Amino acid sequence: MKAAMIGLGRMGHNMAERLLRHGHELVIFNRTTSAYAGLVELGATVAPDLASLHALLTPPRVVWVMVPAGAPTEEVITQLFEILEAGDIIIDGGNSNFRDSMRRAQAARERGLFFIDSGTSGGIWGLQNGYCLMVGGEPEAVEIARPLFIDLAPEDGFLHVGPVGSGHFVKMVHNGIEYGLLQAYGEGFEILKASEFPLDLPAVAKLWNHGSVVRSWLLELLEKAYAENPDLKGIRGYVEDSGEGRWTVEEAIRENVPAPVITLSLMARFSSRQEESYSAKVIAALRNQFGGHPIKPE
Amino acid sequence: MKAAMIGLGRMGHNMAERLLRHGHELVIFNRTTSAYAGLVELGATVAPDLASLHALLTPPRVVWVMVPAGAPTEEVITQLFEILEAGDIIIDGGNSNFRDSMRRAQAARERGLFFIDSGTSGGIWGLQNGYCLMVGGEPEAVEIARPLFIDLAPEDGFLHVGPVGSGHFVKMVHNGIEYGLLQAYGEGFEILKASEFPLDLPAVAKLWNHGSVVRSWLLELLEKAYAENPDLKGIRGYVEDSGEGRWTVEEAIRENVPAPVITLSLMARFSSRQEESYSAKVIAALRNQFGGHPIKPE
Amino acid sequence: MKAAMIGLGRMGHNMAERLLRHGHELVIFNRTTSAYAGLVELGATVAPDLASLHALLTPPRVVWVMVPAGAPTEEVITQLFEILEAGDIIIDGGNSNFRDSMRRAQAARERGLFFIDSGTSGGIWGLQNGYCLMVGGEPEAVEIARPLFIDLAPEDGFLHVGPVGSGHFVKMVHNGIEYGLLQAYGEGFEILKASEFPLDLPAVAKLWNHGSVVRSWLLELLEKAYAENPDLKGIRGYVEDSGEGRWTVEEAIRENVPAPVITLSLMARFSSRQEESYSAKVIAALRNQFGGHPIKPE
Amino acid sequence: MKAAMIGLGRMGHNMAERLLRHGHELVIFNRTTSAYAGLVELGATVAPDLASLHALLTPPRVVWVMVPAGAPTEEVITQLFEILEAGDIIIDGGNSNFRDSMRRAQAARERGLFFIDSGTSGGIWGLQNGYCLMVGGEPEAVEIARPLFIDLAPEDGFLHVGPVGSGHFVKMVHNGIEYGLLQAYGEGFEILKASEFPLDLPAVAKLWNHGSVVRSWLLELLEKAYAENPDLKGIRGYVEDSGEGRWTVEEAIRENVPAPVITLSLMARFSSRQEESYSAKVIAALRNQFGGHPIKPE
Repeated sequence: MKAAMIGLGRMGHNMAERLLRHGHELVIFNRTTSAYAGLVELGATVAPDLASLHALLTPPRVVWVMVPAGAPTEEVITQLFEILEAGDIIIDGGNSNFRDSMRRAQAARERGLFFIDSGTSGGIWGLQNGYCLMVGGEPEAVEIARPLFIDLAPEDGFLHVGPVGSGHFVKMVHNGIEYGLLQAYGEGFEILKASEFPLDLPAVAKLWNHGSVVRSWLLELLEKAYAENPDLKGIRGYVEDSGEGRWTVEEAIRENVPAPVITLSLMARFSSRQEESYSAKVIAALRNQFGGHPIKPE
Repeated sequence: MKAAMIGLGRMGHNMAERLLRHGHELVIFNRTTSAYAGLVELGATVAPDLASLHALLTPPRVVWVMVPAGAPTEEVITQLFEILEAGDIIIDGGNSNFRDSMRRAQAARERGLFFIDSGTSGGIWGLQNGYCLMVGGEPEAVEIARPLFIDLAPEDGFLHVGPVGSGHFVKMVHNGIEYGLLQAYGEGFEILKASEFPLDLPAVAKLWNHGSVVRSWLLELLEKAYAENPDLKGIRGYVEDSGEGRWTVEEAIRENVPAPVITLSLMARFSSRQEESYSAKVIAALRNQFGGHPIKPE
Repeated sequence: MKAAMIGLGRMGHNMAERLLRHGHELVIFNRTTSAYAGLVELGATVAPDLASLHALLTPPRVVWVMVPAGAPTEEVITQLFEILEAGDIIIDGGNSNFRDSMRRAQAARERGLFFIDSGTSGGIWGLQNGYCLMVGGEPEAVEIARPLFIDLAPEDGFLHVGPVGSGHFVKMVHNGIEYGLLQAYGEGFEILKASEFPLDLPAVAKLWNHGSVVRSWLLELLEKAYAENPDLKGIRGYVEDSGEGRWTVEEAIRENVPAPVITLSLMARFSSRQEESYSAKVIAALRNQFGGHPIKPE
Repeated sequence: MKAAMIGLGRMGHNMAERLLRHGHELVIFNRTTSAYAGLVELGATVAPDLASLHALLTPPRVVWVMVPAGAPTEEVITQLFEILEAGDIIIDGGNSNFRDSMRRAQAARERGLFFIDSGTSGGIWGLQNGYCLMVGGEPEAVEIARPLFIDLAPEDGFLHVGPVGSGHFVKMVHNGIEYGLLQAYGEGFEILKASEFPLDLPAVAKLWNHGSVVRSWLLELLEKAYAENPDLKGIRGYVEDSGEGRWTVEEAIRENVPAPVITLSLMARFSSRQEESYSAKVIAALRNQFGGHPIKPE
């Protein structure tokens, strides 16, 4: 089908390529033009600006937005509100907060537009494996865009999970779980590494992918990472977070759900980014005060 | 090859069956005789008692012990020390603490026996999929028993990870990771369930197995569990633990490794088994004292 | 000095009494009139409604609001905006979120009013011991209200901590710490209780208040609680939370500060209020799937 | 009364001084003789070696051992077993693991000796304020040594908590709680420090000691630490642990008691001592694998 893809970063570019390879007619737009490379060759039409999407697409126009969450997404969607017409469909496939998506859907509705939030998982492997898509939105809009979802996803990898907001909500929780899984593996391999046995961690990662209870796609990637770099040389123990983890914790708190593992996984990332813990400074000062315990100088 | 399997519970019975189907000559022994059903038909020889293993096997005798960790394993191995001869091999395939295995290996060594600790993962699915085997022991002994390991495991699912003790150590950490993975999924699905959206949890579990970052064998089992019982009806939120999780935490502490996620996964199990938290009682009493906050009567 | 106290609940009533006993001229108002008992006798003037505060006070009018955080506080402050005049001062002494206080202060400023946020600690003991006051606001307004702060607080128990919002912020963190302290004592006494030794917990609580490193006011209250009720009979292990704990966690997350202890103290309260953990149900179902581990029926 | 004090480090020296000032006749012994300074002047008799304790004391001899836990304590007590006679009393006032104390008490009993474990809290302030003493042992032995306990402790600061082992057990849990309290304050002050408000942390620490719910002896020490060093300059955020915290966690696990706060306080100390988290390295490698997230170079 005909659709537009706005934002051709790491994710958007691959998704556009996958759609083109499945025969869709894509109009593409990106802030910087270097991103068009590889897609034009596959038949994509470059839009000179967002406004031209109106003419380059046919109603109901379907525009997939794949730009960073927060201000960039807000900006693009606000512009699309001016450009599109009643009945057209905006799909936010990025990592937006589901509450933002609910707010944007409400604003879209007031303009007669449809808004779909598509939580998208699969990372850089999605081009090849397909993307797992968790889609929230009104049934009629989801129906129209279905051919895109079907071809972006592997078999059974697309689901209309519920009303607007639920797509990004389910994706948010998905990422919260991901934090926990990563931290569980991380801790396990650190315990192995610190052990009294001279273990071959790359070999263990590979082994566990064959028949063990903890086998998973992430563990396959760890096997791959170790195969490429057995000592993880050059990789600093510094872990960013991109929002979904903290939102998951906030929602857990809002729901009164204890989520110690997801929360501590997030906070371990904070720790990884600290040069030093002020909390630990306070405790060191206190231990010196009450017990005369020596202080380690800075 | 010829070998004995002692202990034909959930795990041992399946392992014996898998070995028999791969053409090994098995002598079997179990505390209760009903466990022989199904194995004799596949050609297993029943040993009337442990002592008869001496005559029923040929040197170097290989005896796989698959009984519950702790006292039962201790008892069987102690008896085998009396029955076997220099050069014979005892394999503990159960969930023994690796420090016990190191101690038993030392005792075996003093008698001229070999001791191998084989961490075994795969659960009830191992019969069909093969077992992931993490094996610790002396190379010459592992070499002799290799045909068993090869046929119990799927391809690449057996590894001689290091000296005696390291097999059970690696298995212990494996289970610690498993605790963390389970808790991460558990928390995620609880957050989904408590959400403002009417989500179809079985459908989400299935969806995530197709292309998402959190896909795993455990998630496939969750999909299966939900397919059989979408509301998890009749399943109480009560989780046992069988030792490896707490040992993993103890080792992490011994190693000075922060392992918050594995630890809290263990403690969440403790909480699941408490009728009421005494800690919470203390806090409720204190909040009443300082703030006049009302107490909920028992 | 002359001032009004709005809201005569557990906290407000005691604070009004303390101010009256220190010779202040108080105008009081409460949603229900039974709360006036005891205060009129001490010389308080009852305002028939909020509007009459305009006439009953003299400029700059100082109005202390001591009603529940959230909607009740919002409502009272919104009404005061209509009643008061430029130069008048609203003090929110309740447990409002500091971001709400910043917003209200902005709205007050636009009307020429002053807004002060006074974090108030001390609980039901404040009447006797004085309240610890963490005050945020503009210096000139804080100066005018200073006589109230001085007499509500014990010596050194009042501080102008910074601009508007900072009072409630510091109080919020104070309560976050309180959650951690309570949980630490709770866990400790639970470990004592579950021990192999037949310990006299009330005696230990008392003992630790004499010379030990963990002595504190909270521990004195625990000593008192145990003295009144050695078995904590009739007190259910069910712990409410009133907002500041969860806000502290949210701010810690916003600041990228790891705060595992405060966070887990909050989540332990969630657990205390759950009949059953859905997370544990999921894990029980999974353990049954992979290991055949028995399920505990509901 | 007459008694010996073995080990005159930070704790032992002060305790000896306190006993001498209360009129007790002390025989003292230390590995290095410089520690005798200040005590001889107060009337202490120096023992040239441990063996001479036999002659320098009168039956029932009371020997207080105040040396580091572990090997040094083991060594001294083993020697005392040879030197002392039936009916004599050994008091271990150090931070021994309670299970070691139970074992040593059993060995003492077999020799007709009494063994008392006295958990001792109060740190370097004990000289002035008295020590909180948690004493385990047989009643008749505790009775004989009572004058020492009474004078070492402040009023109500000594308790015979139960049989041998229980003294060190209660002290262990005391320290576990202390870990939690310290961490709660540490986190709180870090959240204050990272806030958008320019807060005066030393002033807040002082403020909270006046009327607030979180006031405590530890907070008084923090006030003092900040008064001496408002920026905690020269104090590295590096926190040692001396055993009781990890034992508390191990016992909590043995008892199936969830103790998230005490445990995470311990693990925060581990983190404070790590240059880098290997766990975080693993996660950074994995995020790069699945999402192409950039790696921070070492």
